[in-house]
Amino acid sequence: MKVLQERICQDGNVLSDTVLKVDAFLNHQVDPKLAMQIGEEFAKRFANEQITKVLTIEASGIQFAMATGVALQVPFVYAKKKKAITQSDDVYTASVHSFTRKETYLISVAKTYLQPGERVLIVDDFLATGAALVGLCDIVKEAGAELVGVGAVIEKSFQEGRGLLEDRGIAIHSLARIKSMSPEGIEFIEEIAISKS
Amino acid sequence: MKVLQERICQDGNVLSDTVLKVDAFLNHQVDPKLAMQIGEEFAKRFANEQITKVLTIEASGIQFAMATGVALQVPFVYAKKKKAITQSDDVYTASVHSFTRKETYLISVAKTYLQPGERVLIVDDFLATGAALVGLCDIVKEAGAELVGVGAVIEKSFQEGRGLLEDRGIAIHSLARIKSMSPEGIEFIEEIAISKS
Repeated sequence: MKVLQERICQDGNVLSDTVLKVDAFLNHQVDPKLAMQIGEEFAKRFANEQITKVLTIEASGIQFAMATGVALQVPFVYAKKKKAITQSDDVYTASVHSFTRKETYLISVAKTYLQPGERVLIVDDFLATGAALVGLCDIVKEAGAELVGVGAVIEKSFQEGRGLLEDRGIAIHSLARIKSMSPEGIEFIEEIAISKS
Repeated sequence: MKVLQERICQDGNVLSDTVLKVDAFLNHQVDPKLAMQIGEEFAKRFANEQITKVLTIEASGIQFAMATGVALQVPFVYAKKKKAITQSDDVYTASVHSFTRKETYLISVAKTYLQPGERVLIVDDFLATGAALVGLCDIVKEAGAELVGVGAVIEKSFQEGRGLLEDRGIAIHSLARIKSMSPEGIEFIEEIAISKS
């Protein structure tokens, strides 16, 4: 997605060979127009999949799940990282290790909002280690729902996340695939024909 | 906002005289069409305020800040509850006590995304005790930005939040103001003329 790649180059900040800061426009301050375009792009790439629900994880997946839900005209659900007192005990859970936060936490989705037979698209801001996305995939499987695929806004292709998902036979669409990066620049993997399906 | 009040009556779940569960359509599973309408309504109510930025707090404010940002065509920022390794130390912070989670936590906004002179609209899903919203107001003040007002999707008018904000002279627009509630029903405060400004 050209406009996204250009924006990453313009406003992103490569802190090291592995850490990319995009909090000027994606995940702290958010450009809502760009987020809506991202949602439309996910909707286009999974257009033939009869998706009934979009699933993400709080917090930084929400703006993209929202945009994708608007484009597909289906509800979205965000997995919670902590239990609220209003939350039922009847939840699907998965354990996720965050490398950026250096902690392991439990994510949960109320069973009533993920029903067997639903066709689910998972979206998130980053596909890197894949930890959070694998946790979401496990929850979809546990629910007996159909996982249509995963949409990531940015993929750090040099990390293991894509491999973990591909090993499970999951369709992945990342809108900006970073092959390598350093404070001197970012190299993207060019989009291939399959991304137009 | 009539469509919202009707939806609360239809899909909300009053767990006690003080706890309202709306996670079927607002803050776990989200109806993106309704969320967009909520954003448009906030934009309408603060239409003459030359807003330059929308501010909220992760996680459940994000969908409404996103919708409001789309409607106003301005960026939004969500305060973080935890520090990511990509986050700068140069942040505004406020201490917030959560009664639903029974804990006190620090919220933060990177200084670079809240500049002196900006005209800021704060939005969140609930105005109840006002703790999170007061924290956000403090951050706007600390930044030297102009607080235009607060937009809450649902207000529990029987709690102290509105009073705390009014004492500070802050304009408040809540789209569904609950006077009282019980598992038997919900009584709303009718909208008054000022809400059409």
